[in-house]
Amino acid sequence: MNDIKVGLLGFGTIGAGVAKLLLANAEHIKGKLGTNLVLKRIADLDITTDRGVAVPEGVLTTRADDVLTDPEISVVIELIGGYEPAKSFVLKAIENGKHVVTANKALLALHGQEIFAAAARKNVEVLFEASVGGGIPVLSAIRGNMAANNFSTVFGILNGTCNYILTKMTEEGADFAPALKKAQELGYAEADPTFDIEGVDTAHKLSLLLSLCFGTRVTFSDIYCEGVSSLTATDISFAKEFGYRIKLLAIGKLDEGRIEARVHPTMIPQNSPLSDVNGAFNAIRFTGDFIGPVMFYGRGAGMDATASAVIGDVMDIGRNLLAGIGRRTAPLGYLDESMRTLTIKPMAEIVSKYYLRFSAVDQPGALAKIAGALGDAGISIESMIQTGRSTGDAVPVVIMTHEAGEGAVQKALAVIDASDIVTEKTHLIRIEESLD
Amino acid sequence: MNDIKVGLLGFGTIGAGVAKLLLANAEHIKGKLGTNLVLKRIADLDITTDRGVAVPEGVLTTRADDVLTDPEISVVIELIGGYEPAKSFVLKAIENGKHVVTANKALLALHGQEIFAAAARKNVEVLFEASVGGGIPVLSAIRGNMAANNFSTVFGILNGTCNYILTKMTEEGADFAPALKKAQELGYAEADPTFDIEGVDTAHKLSLLLSLCFGTRVTFSDIYCEGVSSLTATDISFAKEFGYRIKLLAIGKLDEGRIEARVHPTMIPQNSPLSDVNGAFNAIRFTGDFIGPVMFYGRGAGMDATASAVIGDVMDIGRNLLAGIGRRTAPLGYLDESMRTLTIKPMAEIVSKYYLRFSAVDQPGALAKIAGALGDAGISIESMIQTGRSTGDAVPVVIMTHEAGEGAVQKALAVIDASDIVTEKTHLIRIEESLD
Repeated sequence: MNDIKVGLLGFGTIGAGVAKLLLANAEHIKGKLGTNLVLKRIADLDITTDRGVAVPEGVLTTRADDVLTDPEISVVIELIGGYEPAKSFVLKAIENGKHVVTANKALLALHGQEIFAAAARKNVEVLFEASVGGGIPVLSAIRGNMAANNFSTVFGILNGTCNYILTKMTEEGADFAPALKKAQELGYAEADPTFDIEGVDTAHKLSLLLSLCFGTRVTFSDIYCEGVSSLTATDISFAKEFGYRIKLLAIGKLDEGRIEARVHPTMIPQNSPLSDVNGAFNAIRFTGDFIGPVMFYGRGAGMDATASAVIGDVMDIGRNLLAGIGRRTAPLGYLDESMRTLTIKPMAEIVSKYYLRFSAVDQPGALAKIAGALGDAGISIESMIQTGRSTGDAVPVVIMTHEAGEGAVQKALAVIDASDIVTEKTHLIRIEESLD
Repeated sequence: MNDIKVGLLGFGTIGAGVAKLLLANAEHIKGKLGTNLVLKRIADLDITTDRGVAVPEGVLTTRADDVLTDPEISVVIELIGGYEPAKSFVLKAIENGKHVVTANKALLALHGQEIFAAAARKNVEVLFEASVGGGIPVLSAIRGNMAANNFSTVFGILNGTCNYILTKMTEEGADFAPALKKAQELGYAEADPTFDIEGVDTAHKLSLLLSLCFGTRVTFSDIYCEGVSSLTATDISFAKEFGYRIKLLAIGKLDEGRIEARVHPTMIPQNSPLSDVNGAFNAIRFTGDFIGPVMFYGRGAGMDATASAVIGDVMDIGRNLLAGIGRRTAPLGYLDESMRTLTIKPMAEIVSKYYLRFSAVDQPGALAKIAGALGDAGISIESMIQTGRSTGDAVPVVIMTHEAGEGAVQKALAVIDASDIVTEKTHLIRIEESLD
């Protein structure tokens, strides 16, 4: 069998990892595929920076078309990231009959439908294992061996930057700003960390998980998204007192034909398996109707782990090429005609337990007024802490509610926050007791 | 496309789960495959017992040949278990050009080579996801998206019966016998639990993991195997004091071309992710050269979870049938000609930390003699507990060693156990500090 020729778009950190893996494990890969995976061309605007990989001469090019129009190249790996020119390149690769492997969650979360439709027309695969959970082979498991299941929930810790920051805050009692600074110094956070810390990256990944798990198209804008930048050491410390840890959690639930799709800081019990997922690690937990609860854990980012997922996808396509077939599985696991239209449950209708931290004025009756406003909205209180710790004129009052509707909670907080019994906007963190 | 017809051999608990899944999720499966998976025949010697599944008329038969020779059936699911007649049936199915899905780890651990060779000749798949880790899609991940990695270690909690018993012993301070009795009452352990509690089942599963991870044939007899039946509440309690939990761990390591392959009770740190795997759950942890550490967690047994893995395999084969191809991936991930011959490291040459519990005679100098014998063998002591707790004439002395060779430890114990300073055979439990 002839070699399988691969082209790479984007020679940044992940691209270098892919090149490194293909060179280092060439024999290993051949021992499984029976043929060589050859990295024929790498296109990047910058081909002078040393990436630490000994790329053979003639491989590097500044012209994407050297990859996209090369008739020998059957698989194009897109690692440019972002929307353009990544989207145009991916569509052109598909148009030219090439299979595509990408780690670009942002692109797929926004333009997946268009890209998948193009791939269906040309009978080529679009695989994207590296886009969610770094090296963790979670998407291929949903499309693959877990395919017989109807899933009811999916929970994920999907952003290493946020998780690193929250781990630091938890371990060291640090506030957000210094923890972010440390993450930036260590290379765990980018100079502009907005996409990571505001939950955008996590929401992109959740949109893909939801589409694969529930067989419906969920785009980024459908997902409620709240980041970690407003979390404080105080909240982390209170969470501990109540037996919780705070994680930026991606949450997907299928409830009577409607989907909950949300990303926000979430308190989860300290003895929950996801609460031990620390630093730059990721984990994804599902419940399927037959498999029950199942969890995957591993490195959520990094050049090596991500390269593992990328090349795993390329090898999967390689097996198809060797067998002489085109697309074997639809990108989302479901055939196009089987995709469902499910509505997203509005945030006001979700039901959760809540952690509410009020900055109450330090005077008699404040607590009663807060409790009264909650009671008026039908929200019942599970427990309460009022400490002596005063911050300026205010005293922190923490209330953990029983399950309540988000709409009622927001309504009560609007009343309280507009009153003179609190000195600042109330901090709200949702609680997930069970991850099944 | 025509329906895909499936035949089932063995209508016990797992067989009933498979039938239940195929009936319950028929539409869901069709939405992914684009065609029906039809359970055409079920063969079992007992077709009168009610399995709680409404099997359509004409499906049940007592003759395996009704499955094995039916030209319409393209996939045979073997859920009989054990060696014969399972082996003959599997070989006959292959001979007749049928793809095979099995959950039979015992069969594959002993006769895998013969079965895989037959399947290669006939260009059919033999898939066995359900044989390791119940529903957890771990084998398909090794063969699939993680395929680019060279693995260096694999650790597994692979037997729900043992793990349930150890969890009970840990939580309730129970001794082995009452914990086993409870497990039997609850259906977690069989009337004859030997295969489970003596580690045989775990070793069967480890042999398959090792073959997939390291590309070499490891049969059951290559694996050192020690069960949980000699563990006592005393050892569990000491483990806690030192910050460990005891698990029946399957251990595979690749070390300079030699394989460590062993199953034995193992102390692992309480903060290790595997230490939280309780009850009937399973988990498998790997380290690959690119993916780094990765862990899978889920239900290791049970009719529903196991059926998820079985039907996942059938759907995988279904995609091949729909694409008009035969075998797409070798059963162990490696092509036959790429399989390596690696030697197994003898137990005497492994290096580990050890927990040693001596029943020392209650007289001056006993401790010095024990420490002296260890010192003579070059074994250095990390910590020691001698409590007042006496058991009859003896006082328990617990020594945690630094890393030492198993050969030296066994030699020292032979000297000590033959002496008059101890009243019974010394209890030895190996310690794994790091699971990477």
